Amino acid sequence: MSEGYTLHEDPRSGNCYKIKMVASYLGIPLTIRAYDILKGETRTPEFAANVSKANAIPVLEIQDDLGPRFIPESNAACWYLAEGSDLIPEGRFNRAEMLRWMFFEQNTHEPNIATLRFWYQFVGVDNLSEEQKAMITAKSNTAVSALRLLEDHLATRDWMVGDAATLADVVLFPYTQTAEESRFPLANYPAIGRWLERVENVPALTPPR
Amino acid sequence: MSEGYTLHEDPRSGNCYKIKMVASYLGIPLTIRAYDILKGETRTPEFAANVSKANAIPVLEIQDDLGPRFIPESNAACWYLAEGSDLIPEGRFNRAEMLRWMFFEQNTHEPNIATLRFWYQFVGVDNLSEEQKAMITAKSNTAVSALRLLEDHLATRDWMVGDAATLADVVLFPYTQTAEESRFPLANYPAIGRWLERVENVPALTPPR
Repeated sequence: MSEGYTLHEDPRSGNCYKIKMVASYLGIPLTIRAYDILKGETRTPEFAANVSKANAIPVLEIQDDLGPRFIPESNAACWYLAEGSDLIPEGRFNRAEMLRWMFFEQNTHEPNIATLRFWYQFVGVDNLSEEQKAMITAKSNTAVSALRLLEDHLATRDWMVGDAATLADVVLFPYTQTAEESRFPLANYPAIGRWLERVENVPALTPPR
Repeated sequence: MSEGYTLHEDPRSGNCYKIKMVASYLGIPLTIRAYDILKGETRTPEFAANVSKANAIPVLEIQDDLGPRFIPESNAACWYLAEGSDLIPEGRFNRAEMLRWMFFEQNTHEPNIATLRFWYQFVGVDNLSEEQKAMITAKSNTAVSALRLLEDHLATRDWMVGDAATLADVVLFPYTQTAEESRFPLANYPAIGRWLERVENVPALTPPR
């Protein structure tokens, strides 16, 4: 069976970068199809009809004998590519622990840290709606709680789960690495800083952005 | 190996109910330890020290020969209990598709639909902070998008993934079933209504709340 993958992405998105990390680490070639989310290029009827009705990136497109199929949601796409590799740990508890941090990332970490980065770096505070401006305090507070939980977890261990990099490290890496762009000084989180370096030193895991 | 489980929960929480669904379906006994989140009973130093530093429920506690271990995050706890059962489908694509909907649930569905339910039903609109009140419109809009995506998905299929109930149906069930408490009339979503009935008819999958 001949398999190929296309990543529908915006290169500025940390969610998209996660998938490139997994593919790079495993040596899987990805064809890139880039969209500019600031220009609404994923919010078109064509995107809904041909890629994903959720009108959001990333979407991993799988080409194989069954025809094109699509996986939205960054963490699910990472799982698909990583199945059978050492990025998913052996052991039932460790797998659940890895998923625990992956769900935490999508529920508590990304919606706050990534959204603030998007607003500060790409939209611009002056261009935010009043409704968005009103959410900055709550999002900042939850983001700090998330970073403190990571700092505490990493104070006594090298990796999020077990004794090597897993998908938990992968999915938490992009928006933690760019936390300064979300206005959270990483100097406040020394254990996170050491962990970021550790992830960067895993061969092929952090390709050029 | 003798195994036992304690679910640290608030009985009103749909996130906790997911875990009870999986345990009921698989015939796994759970010891219940209830907390009142409105009284801050999970926000204590004792809870942080003894159950979870994230100070949130649910937490699944595993008792076995290795001593007590804890899994926060409802969807990770569901995965732990369901490993090896038919709630996790065979087939790499179907597993990724199931995880896609589980991450969607935690990123897009639950933070909006469940939070609005909590505010309307348990906190009371009059008791919300100005910051919270300012978030109602955005949360309502995203919740409606999430429900429309589900409605569209279920218009042409009986189950979220494949041809039987999986964890994707389990984790999306609780806060969709109570969507009226979040002020979203289910009459607007007929395919969702038929799916809710289908889930309710799976033997043992929806124990008494």
